Amino acid sequence: MSDARSIDVEELAARVRDGQRAAVARAITLVESRRDDHRAAARELLALLTPHAGGAVRVGISGVPGVGKSTFIETLGTYLTGTDHKVGVLAVDPSSVRTGGSVLGDKTRMPELAADPRAYIRPSPSAGTLGGVARASTQAILVLEAAGFDVVLVETVGVGQSEVTVAGMVDTFLFLTLARTGDQLQGIKKGILEIADVIAVNKADGDREPEARVAAKDLAGAIRLVHAGGTGWVPPVLTCSGLEGVDVDTVWLRVLRHREFLGAAGLREKRAAQQLEFMWALVRDELDQRLRRSEAVRGVLDDVRAAVLSGEMPATNAADAILAAYDQR
Amino acid sequence: MSDARSIDVEELAARVRDGQRAAVARAITLVESRRDDHRAAARELLALLTPHAGGAVRVGISGVPGVGKSTFIETLGTYLTGTDHKVGVLAVDPSSVRTGGSVLGDKTRMPELAADPRAYIRPSPSAGTLGGVARASTQAILVLEAAGFDVVLVETVGVGQSEVTVAGMVDTFLFLTLARTGDQLQGIKKGILEIADVIAVNKADGDREPEARVAAKDLAGAIRLVHAGGTGWVPPVLTCSGLEGVDVDTVWLRVLRHREFLGAAGLREKRAAQQLEFMWALVRDELDQRLRRSEAVRGVLDDVRAAVLSGEMPATNAADAILAAYDQR
Repeated sequence: MSDARSIDVEELAARVRDGQRAAVARAITLVESRRDDHRAAARELLALLTPHAGGAVRVGISGVPGVGKSTFIETLGTYLTGTDHKVGVLAVDPSSVRTGGSVLGDKTRMPELAADPRAYIRPSPSAGTLGGVARASTQAILVLEAAGFDVVLVETVGVGQSEVTVAGMVDTFLFLTLARTGDQLQGIKKGILEIADVIAVNKADGDREPEARVAAKDLAGAIRLVHAGGTGWVPPVLTCSGLEGVDVDTVWLRVLRHREFLGAAGLREKRAAQQLEFMWALVRDELDQRLRRSEAVRGVLDDVRAAVLSGEMPATNAADAILAAYDQR
Repeated sequence: MSDARSIDVEELAARVRDGQRAAVARAITLVESRRDDHRAAARELLALLTPHAGGAVRVGISGVPGVGKSTFIETLGTYLTGTDHKVGVLAVDPSSVRTGGSVLGDKTRMPELAADPRAYIRPSPSAGTLGGVARASTQAILVLEAAGFDVVLVETVGVGQSEVTVAGMVDTFLFLTLARTGDQLQGIKKGILEIADVIAVNKADGDREPEARVAAKDLAGAIRLVHAGGTGWVPPVLTCSGLEGVDVDTVWLRVLRHREFLGAAGLREKRAAQQLEFMWALVRDELDQRLRRSEAVRGVLDDVRAAVLSGEMPATNAADAILAAYDQR
């Protein structure tokens, strides 16, 4: 990207609001940038766009590799653009940080949607940390909304904390899974049943349909147990086929029903709480980065860590040692 | 407690290792104290005791109020002291911070165990935060172990993060629940099925026994789903009656079996990872406290929070504003 001094933020904001794709791309690149001058420009841009954001149905979509996410999103996205929606697709993939490239959101995986003028697909940023990726993606949602996109799908893989992070930036979290033989379900990761608002057993097509129905029924039973005594919303478990386009619209109706359940006030409250939580997460992330960047901390860390791991040093003493090193900067 | 200068830490450590109850009580009071001079003495004490700690079976016990935790612990503890164990009971109750008093660990709830010379019961410290309570309790475990207690039971209620915190300081986490009519189980809180290693449906006595068995069977089915594709340990679901002493020993055998599953190396690894995680949690907790104590941050916080909640200010900008205030100290 060009020098920050050459960025006319007001003009960029106006072009984003006009829905110009090139401006949307440029704005997202700007909010993903970690350069200090870009950060200042991004802050300004977001201050201009935020009052016009918030208008989208924000949906997180997760599931292990092989569950058929791309095909599902391609089908769902095409269905939505065909019913007059403008659809943005973002990806949160912390693993892309390691590999340098991004698998998720790769346009070649969604050829039809990528060519659709009413859709905009953006691969995962490769910022330094999950916090960095989350920061960029949360801002990208605002950019897309200011540009008039009324549905934003945030795709993620079931890696570490990424699902919890995405759940913290969307209104509804959709979890895709698969049936498999036996009494177990594939791709149910610890904690996922706690954050999913809607669950769909995908690839319920051909021979696999009966199996998928049984899996959905079993899972629904487990869900009822997990959610006993909860807030009242019990995540529905559906079957669908992204490939054949069967019941993908039904899944979408359940997403909308979850929003109805929240209600306008509930949704406002949920988003406000998310923003506040995200604000603190960003602050903590920055303090954490400072600690890790501290040369004094790095100087003692190996010894302290070894002493803790061997059982010589209690964790409390180790924490004090690290803080003492940090403070002597 | 007396002035820190009058504490002979080496003598106190020797008396703790000798198993003297008064010394154990004094040492735990010392590690619970938040006074700076006490903190220094506690650090010294723990450095002396830690090489002699680690010998206990550390078990977390949780369940909603009314599940019968006290009676269960009374029965289990008495069974264990009767089979030649020395049993320490600690409590982690963040709600005691608010009420000023501590409900958990109250000796009058466990009259038999409280009078047992082979048992030591300690109520929850009322330190400022869950982090503070966790810090104190983790250190109290070390004190008890150095004093020769070979079983430490850490009791907690199902409030907020307390169960996750306790799970991070024990080898095995036991969750007590109740049957109730219908297809649901009482006291299953979000996330609890993810951290429980052993589950017992308590109050399986008299008329309630058949109901408890059905509940245990249903729950076992849900557990299998949640743990599909996990590490291999599927938490067993048992029934027991703390009141009548039925199958409490069986629950204990499952706790021991969980330890066998971990193996000596696995247990060492788990504890080392817990200590390292705890060290970072303590460091983060301290940085967080500093931020919250900062007058400059407090000066801007209300306005920033209001702007975020109303949707005027994006979270990223808010985080930057808070950090800017913090840095200008």
